[in-house]
Amino acid sequence: MSAQAAGQGLSPVSFSGWMRQIQARVEAALARLLPPGEAIPCRLHQAMRYASLNGGKRVRPLLVFAAGELAGAGAERLELAAGAVELIHVYSLVHDDLPCMDDDMLRRGRPTCHVEYDEPTALLVGDSLQSLAFGLLARDTAGDAARQLEMVRLLAHASGSCGMAGGQAIDLGSVGKELNQPELELMHTLKTGALIRASVLLGALCGEMLDSGQREALDRYAKRAGLLFQVVDDILDCTASTATLGKTAGKDAAADKPTYVSLLGLEGAREFADDLGKQALAALGGFGPRSRRLIELTDFLTTRKF
Amino acid sequence: MSAQAAGQGLSPVSFSGWMRQIQARVEAALARLLPPGEAIPCRLHQAMRYASLNGGKRVRPLLVFAAGELAGAGAERLELAAGAVELIHVYSLVHDDLPCMDDDMLRRGRPTCHVEYDEPTALLVGDSLQSLAFGLLARDTAGDAARQLEMVRLLAHASGSCGMAGGQAIDLGSVGKELNQPELELMHTLKTGALIRASVLLGALCGEMLDSGQREALDRYAKRAGLLFQVVDDILDCTASTATLGKTAGKDAAADKPTYVSLLGLEGAREFADDLGKQALAALGGFGPRSRRLIELTDFLTTRKF
Repeated sequence: MSAQAAGQGLSPVSFSGWMRQIQARVEAALARLLPPGEAIPCRLHQAMRYASLNGGKRVRPLLVFAAGELAGAGAERLELAAGAVELIHVYSLVHDDLPCMDDDMLRRGRPTCHVEYDEPTALLVGDSLQSLAFGLLARDTAGDAARQLEMVRLLAHASGSCGMAGGQAIDLGSVGKELNQPELELMHTLKTGALIRASVLLGALCGEMLDSGQREALDRYAKRAGLLFQVVDDILDCTASTATLGKTAGKDAAADKPTYVSLLGLEGAREFADDLGKQALAALGGFGPRSRRLIELTDFLTTRKF
Repeated sequence: MSAQAAGQGLSPVSFSGWMRQIQARVEAALARLLPPGEAIPCRLHQAMRYASLNGGKRVRPLLVFAAGELAGAGAERLELAAGAVELIHVYSLVHDDLPCMDDDMLRRGRPTCHVEYDEPTALLVGDSLQSLAFGLLARDTAGDAARQLEMVRLLAHASGSCGMAGGQAIDLGSVGKELNQPELELMHTLKTGALIRASVLLGALCGEMLDSGQREALDRYAKRAGLLFQVVDDILDCTASTATLGKTAGKDAAADKPTYVSLLGLEGAREFADDLGKQALAALGGFGPRSRRLIELTDFLTTRKF
């Protein structure tokens, strides 16, 4: 697929075809960008590849590519940005699954990293994937260095204590507590939303400079999409099976964690998700045909069953 | 202290005075650059500050400043670079001390982070400090963006699976094994050496561009200094007391980990350290008075008692 051609809104490829193309492209990029399993220390590198390859919907990379299309971005830079956000996401899963956190055995339908390898290795896998993610964003591709630096700053903020890791800290502190909707939203805005938002913004930063109005609209979209993703996740956590999800279902309820379903009920959560989907799409109104994949992806995120 | 004035080799400040000045400057910079303890999530931010402030010799920041002096670097950029390497170092200590790794209770004379807070918080502290470190290097200070990107790449490589984290993985796999000197050197080149080397190179990158011969000489210095630091650490681990070190002494021997002392004997390790110190100083030969602090620091690293 040429990002250029798709950017014109002329691609005859269906959404599911596009999604498969991007997923395959991201898989190949990650396989190339991760250190080979034969490089010393081999076991660590094999564990990094085990945790990162062959798995997941690659929602964040899809958002990077869809937003990149909006900004007419080239494929090489999009692959690095998509790889970076996905590695941050994977590192967070590996650390989240550790015994001292969620103590989970199953992820993407396979044993979690610390079960397949061991706990210290899984700890180092997460640490190393985070370093690699920043290394990818800083890779020299003869582009605009100031723009690349902005991307590093954005990802650092989205993944650190005022973003994803901060959201996990709030989550830890919330077990057994009743949160109201603003509190729950703050937790998810950080825990899931920050990286989803960063994916959209990073994708756009790979392309032509958007004007400030466009950036603002895209950011409005990105925030809604991040929350939408989490609300749907909460719904699926209590309606889908472990086999469908590829991870342990129902564990939030079991752990007495507050969710949108526990707060709004199943119907209320569904309505809230639909509403967020509409708001997200409304923010894309001014972008024309270039926003096609982002629109399709938003519909997919709203109606997904896994 | 003006880095400029010191760069001329004219500073009347003694080495120990200079060291205290830089340590205080780095402490103040970290206190300012870390999120305040009152910012949400407060507990995580307090734990990040607990782990990072009031502690340690700040060897890596000292190397950043000493190498920065060599290249005539300004203080603002040096503070960010010094803060970044120190946060990477602190994150590695926090994760290293976790029960699934070294399971250590004491660090810098105080309870380790997971003992003072809890295990999941310590995990997130390490993760968040790493993100923050990259954020600092990417901070917009109207400098040379391409140079900043080079610094991000350098730190990402030095801290990831082909650097510090990789060295820890080799260390994990080496317990109870006999390593020969090349194997032990590879482990330490990655585990400790990579970040020491990066500190020197980052400090130099904050200043004027060195020519390729100078960069090569400085890199030769940096590699020797990294190994020197570890050899002396091994010596101190079996000769100094826990109270002096502020961390558990003798734990490498107790854990049956290979060290330079177990390989070369105490006398042999001392000779090796002296030899590395001489080689490191020889590499600085061509830099003239601007290398004063780096020379003094090398002597300090060779003869330190804690």
